Amino acid sequence: MTQIPYKIHLTEDETPKQWLNLRAFMKNKPAPLLHPGTLKPATADDLKPVFCDECIKQELDDTSKYIDIPQGILEFYKGYRPSALVRAYFLEKALDTPAEIYYKYEGTNTSGSHKLNSAIPQAYYAKKEGLTSLTTETGAGQWGTAMSMACAFYGLNLIVYMVKVSAQQKPYRKYLMETYGAKVVPSPSDTTETGRKILEKDPNTSGSLGCAISEAVETAVKSDKCRYVLGSVLNHVLLHQSIIGLETKLAFDKYGISPDIIIGCAGGGSNLGGLIAPFMVDKLSGNSNAHFIAVEPASCPSLTRGKFAYDFGDTAQTTPLIKMYTLGSGYIPSSNHAGGLRYHGMNSTLSQLYADGFLEARSVEQTKVFDAAVLFAKTEGILPAPESSHAICAAVDEAKKAKLAGEKKKILFGLTGTGYFDMTAYAQYNEKTMSDYIPSDEDLARGFATIPQIDL
Amino acid sequence: MTQIPYKIHLTEDETPKQWLNLRAFMKNKPAPLLHPGTLKPATADDLKPVFCDECIKQELDDTSKYIDIPQGILEFYKGYRPSALVRAYFLEKALDTPAEIYYKYEGTNTSGSHKLNSAIPQAYYAKKEGLTSLTTETGAGQWGTAMSMACAFYGLNLIVYMVKVSAQQKPYRKYLMETYGAKVVPSPSDTTETGRKILEKDPNTSGSLGCAISEAVETAVKSDKCRYVLGSVLNHVLLHQSIIGLETKLAFDKYGISPDIIIGCAGGGSNLGGLIAPFMVDKLSGNSNAHFIAVEPASCPSLTRGKFAYDFGDTAQTTPLIKMYTLGSGYIPSSNHAGGLRYHGMNSTLSQLYADGFLEARSVEQTKVFDAAVLFAKTEGILPAPESSHAICAAVDEAKKAKLAGEKKKILFGLTGTGYFDMTAYAQYNEKTMSDYIPSDEDLARGFATIPQIDL
Repeated sequence: MTQIPYKIHLTEDETPKQWLNLRAFMKNKPAPLLHPGTLKPATADDLKPVFCDECIKQELDDTSKYIDIPQGILEFYKGYRPSALVRAYFLEKALDTPAEIYYKYEGTNTSGSHKLNSAIPQAYYAKKEGLTSLTTETGAGQWGTAMSMACAFYGLNLIVYMVKVSAQQKPYRKYLMETYGAKVVPSPSDTTETGRKILEKDPNTSGSLGCAISEAVETAVKSDKCRYVLGSVLNHVLLHQSIIGLETKLAFDKYGISPDIIIGCAGGGSNLGGLIAPFMVDKLSGNSNAHFIAVEPASCPSLTRGKFAYDFGDTAQTTPLIKMYTLGSGYIPSSNHAGGLRYHGMNSTLSQLYADGFLEARSVEQTKVFDAAVLFAKTEGILPAPESSHAICAAVDEAKKAKLAGEKKKILFGLTGTGYFDMTAYAQYNEKTMSDYIPSDEDLARGFATIPQIDL
Repeated sequence: MTQIPYKIHLTEDETPKQWLNLRAFMKNKPAPLLHPGTLKPATADDLKPVFCDECIKQELDDTSKYIDIPQGILEFYKGYRPSALVRAYFLEKALDTPAEIYYKYEGTNTSGSHKLNSAIPQAYYAKKEGLTSLTTETGAGQWGTAMSMACAFYGLNLIVYMVKVSAQQKPYRKYLMETYGAKVVPSPSDTTETGRKILEKDPNTSGSLGCAISEAVETAVKSDKCRYVLGSVLNHVLLHQSIIGLETKLAFDKYGISPDIIIGCAGGGSNLGGLIAPFMVDKLSGNSNAHFIAVEPASCPSLTRGKFAYDFGDTAQTTPLIKMYTLGSGYIPSSNHAGGLRYHGMNSTLSQLYADGFLEARSVEQTKVFDAAVLFAKTEGILPAPESSHAICAAVDEAKKAKLAGEKKKILFGLTGTGYFDMTAYAQYNEKTMSDYIPSDEDLARGFATIPQIDL
């Protein structure tokens, strides 16, 4: 048998030339977006003031199985893709497990994460459609950095609303986005109607992704030449992120490997949806027995403790309604450090797959996540992002189970990014001042109360 | 002609299995280290209290042309090597230059730089020789992080003396080293004789690499089971770093490319010496006309304005004497942000090559360096370390010259690392509060006065 290298690289020629649209392969498709006023399926015209035309087209398309990646995007991809699929030999040895552990490493670009994969197409289409500016939100700062890089490349202005607690914990992220030319505004801010309202109610709020989204959307719709871009939750983002799974599958195919367990961290679903896409296609068609695991923080458990319902994507309840697992758009997560996972809802495709039993979900507490992160850093040499470490944590658990059972399971997880900008969290962990937080049923009930009562 | 890809990867099998010892190819070899008491060439016994045995052997060996890389090191290398050789298509386009620009990218490992290449062998040999602890110094923090990673991997204790100004500017670097289990002490400190003396004289000193080295050496020689490790300046470090140049040459050979201009930033010389090694061998044997450029900060111009003389490697004047270009071990550089280049001297091999006309040296001011850094970040997508940006700056200058002359020069530079932990400096640059500093002749004279008067 061929020895599997530490890193499986694809050549630039082998890079996928099409994205995979997972919804098109599902018998039970995710429910459509609804216009919040009419409760009818949202049309392209409804979405036009907010998003770029091409992104809307992709968002509403649940039948095209593959969508061509434009040449201008493939060109930029070459700057940092294909990314390596890594065999975690060092981690396997430390765990003394018979399992094979693999991770797809998306952290070598300067955004520090997979987020660049969707930032590029969104900026590319905006430029092509004659826009001059974009607005967005960011939690951990990875998406904001990715958009800053893409906008610098294509020559677009960018305003980033950054969740206030993240802006405070990560000043360096702000400097980084500014280096790429973006304007960074801590959210909630007094620059928007929404922000002012929230600050009036709770001047000390730590902010949330839902609230930052509201501010970014409000600013975007004010101008003809400006649109809003989102780094997760929506289906066109998952489409762009399918490049992760497609590359992973090609790399595995070179060595005839089929993963038994596929693990991704889950915030809005962008990484998880992208990683699992081609593998889930096989599962849906009955050609695979792979087991899929979504890992979310115990502090923001939208899949494991949320409701499957139509809800708004933002706190101000201005977006179309999305059928998803949700904690309610009014749910404000605690200041958990995994900023990128502080979102109340979950992508609709993943929600439907979860509802239909194709996906397992787990929630883990922060300290346990950092235990896994530090073990990974010391063995594999890469300092993982707290978000990614949720996936590492589950992978370690599965590898330990495999050891107990004496099974040679093949475990794949997505290493979405690096933790260089999360050193405050690591310092808290090192100094044992990190706290765990699990919302009480009452905490959740307050969030659920903000889910709209809809009679379809 | 074959299209050159954005990234030229080597396979793991193609990784060099031997390091290249540049001195062995020189007719005019660098002068030997001298024992500061006897002024006789330092022997292995002289160095034994300070360094590991194998590193001493390598340090004193100027005749073996190639030295085998042990299997245990090759194994660890696989975790992050071979690194990619990148064609800077985006930068070329932005500069509209006929030149081809290439960079060897050493920044994807968590130390954020090439430093890991020598940290691994030094920790490996220490462990093999039965030591339990190591001490070292760090400027920008890249070397300290690299040693922390290597010591975590091989199970060794580590104390890092970190130049005080860097510790203040980069608290996150400290957290990072602590995450890997190292103990970090800002230098000068009150934990050593040397540190206390320096603090007594100047309680507000910002520290220097020379001073941090003194503290680390003082601590190491106190114990039988502890040795000191250094990330630059010495020849065994350059030996380990030759992996950079060897991989680069192999990657070029795949496409039949010979670089015309080879550029590296120069602090103690570890990256520059490693990058140029195999190309300089060709030059020394008359088989190449490549032009070599060392780029140093105007604030610490050891090659361009220093003296070629025997000098101490540290401020406390405890190390063996090294024949090198030096500003004097008493020279304290201004708080220039390129922490890794804040060293008064230069590796002896590179010094000899410079004295013999095989190498050009240039010094550049900080603001110009950051101009190049931001251009690079916005086009190539990678946020470079300030140190590496010195090389980028010269590469951009050369590409512009090539444009004026209409020449298709092939330019190679070393992208030693990333700037994620240098965001304070980037913020100063963005806010236009960054200052340049060029030492006056009087400033230099004060440093030169500390060079020992030796009558050989």
